[in-house]
Amino acid sequence: MTELYVGMDIGGTKTAAVVIDADGNLGASTLLPTALGNEGVLQSAEAAIAALAEQTGCSRNDFTSVGIGVPGQVNSELGEVRYAYNLRVESLSLANELHARTGLDVAVENDVTAAAVGAAHLMQLGHGSVAYINLGTGLSAGIVLDGHPVRGANGLAGEVGHLAVDPRGRQCPCGQRGCLETVASGSALKTYWPAGGEHPGWVLADAIAAGDTEAKLAFELLVEGAAATVRTIGVTVSPDTIVIGGGLRKIGAPLIDGIRANLEAGERKSPFLQSFMLSQRIRVVPEGMPVATVGAALSPRT
Amino acid sequence: MTELYVGMDIGGTKTAAVVIDADGNLGASTLLPTALGNEGVLQSAEAAIAALAEQTGCSRNDFTSVGIGVPGQVNSELGEVRYAYNLRVESLSLANELHARTGLDVAVENDVTAAAVGAAHLMQLGHGSVAYINLGTGLSAGIVLDGHPVRGANGLAGEVGHLAVDPRGRQCPCGQRGCLETVASGSALKTYWPAGGEHPGWVLADAIAAGDTEAKLAFELLVEGAAATVRTIGVTVSPDTIVIGGGLRKIGAPLIDGIRANLEAGERKSPFLQSFMLSQRIRVVPEGMPVATVGAALSPRT
Repeated sequence: MTELYVGMDIGGTKTAAVVIDADGNLGASTLLPTALGNEGVLQSAEAAIAALAEQTGCSRNDFTSVGIGVPGQVNSELGEVRYAYNLRVESLSLANELHARTGLDVAVENDVTAAAVGAAHLMQLGHGSVAYINLGTGLSAGIVLDGHPVRGANGLAGEVGHLAVDPRGRQCPCGQRGCLETVASGSALKTYWPAGGEHPGWVLADAIAAGDTEAKLAFELLVEGAAATVRTIGVTVSPDTIVIGGGLRKIGAPLIDGIRANLEAGERKSPFLQSFMLSQRIRVVPEGMPVATVGAALSPRT
Repeated sequence: MTELYVGMDIGGTKTAAVVIDADGNLGASTLLPTALGNEGVLQSAEAAIAALAEQTGCSRNDFTSVGIGVPGQVNSELGEVRYAYNLRVESLSLANELHARTGLDVAVENDVTAAAVGAAHLMQLGHGSVAYINLGTGLSAGIVLDGHPVRGANGLAGEVGHLAVDPRGRQCPCGQRGCLETVASGSALKTYWPAGGEHPGWVLADAIAAGDTEAKLAFELLVEGAAATVRTIGVTVSPDTIVIGGGLRKIGAPLIDGIRANLEAGERKSPFLQSFMLSQRIRVVPEGMPVATVGAALSPRT
């Protein structure tokens, strides 16, 4: 019998989960609302595992392992998560507690790092190095070098959204001013373009086409900040591929075209930047590709 | 008989080389002028190996390997170096050509990456992750994660000196404007404080103490840029330790104290930055510690 691995992405509103086999092929998948708080998160995880077992026609004990991607500060060695405020979790020993309830081996990974692992696998980026930039409500990145996720001291690698680049920029909730996240994120879009509603990314391109100047300014700041994020990661670790993902990829072609054009303009001015070829190293996650859950499923083996 | 490894740092004026044993203990060392150009570099390397063999009382064939740190863009897999302009080398297949002349196994590493490997070893930083910031004529960094140097696509990891952070800043020779290197480097010191002469780092602290306002401004920009470099590397890969090295460490205690004070000021304003504890993760390379040569000697095994 083939081995089956569960991968799960627990977000502030929904918990997505999949089963993959030893070759990384996708099996069952499920999507449930997330219950919040420590107990809620544990119950959500149990419910997702039960749903996958039922779909697969097996017992949950048939699963080899469960990998979970969560927001916040993750200690993968201990399987703990801290400061996952949108899950209402201050501190949770997720791996141990879920193991106690299910008997399963549980691994915990930062959700964006898991997405980087998943993108490297599903986009067939081989054993090269990959950075995954998550343009979501916030801005952060996951980095995979030689197949291994870079977690960093205190699980803090990839927090590029809070690099303060503009002393004249907006105050960031993190306490700094002019962080990349204050221009390149969903929350920044809402600040600069309140008319965009709850999901500004879904309607931004149309609004710009219709001549909305506020939408255009918000978009330009987003593109500039995203390109600066690509350059920051580029000159620091120089990944083979930089993948753009997160909710804002719904903006579609204008987003990646804008980022690429910004990078190209920089490369024309600087032979040094040209040598990085960052404009040719960026890719977008295809719509619907389950990078976060599949990456979480792969995490116990990375 | 114990195995002996040669490590070499070929710079624009001098070539330093050492022998270490399998436990990383230092044996013979030598310092020679560097001859420039492809032929000059190869001859310098051969001369250094010969000097070490003579000091050690052995034949050069008794050396197990030679690791060489060089400036420029290094392809460690192929043992090639490109664009090492201060060696007057456009492109050199250093490993193959030196092997053809000596019969020895030769590995080539970017000099700052080698210094990071050496600092991790000599400063006994264990198997944690280390970033080494080289405040020399230019500004760049070497990164070691889990004992492995991060080289990046095209060997370009660690080129943080050319992160453009100030659109109102000085033009950088790289073609961009306001790069970190335009404020935090020896060449920046010379620009902002021409009175400092050829080695401004040696006399900067005294000049500031004597009330030189130009020296003070140049120092403040240096400290601010160095702290920004620490934060950039910090939020991207979150290393356990960030080591400050390079010629400007000769400024001494005021430099590291200034960088630490700048980091602490940022941490007081931002609970987020506080969680990185970067001000407590920085260390200075002790004067005279041969991080570059020892790191190069270790490179064939990393």
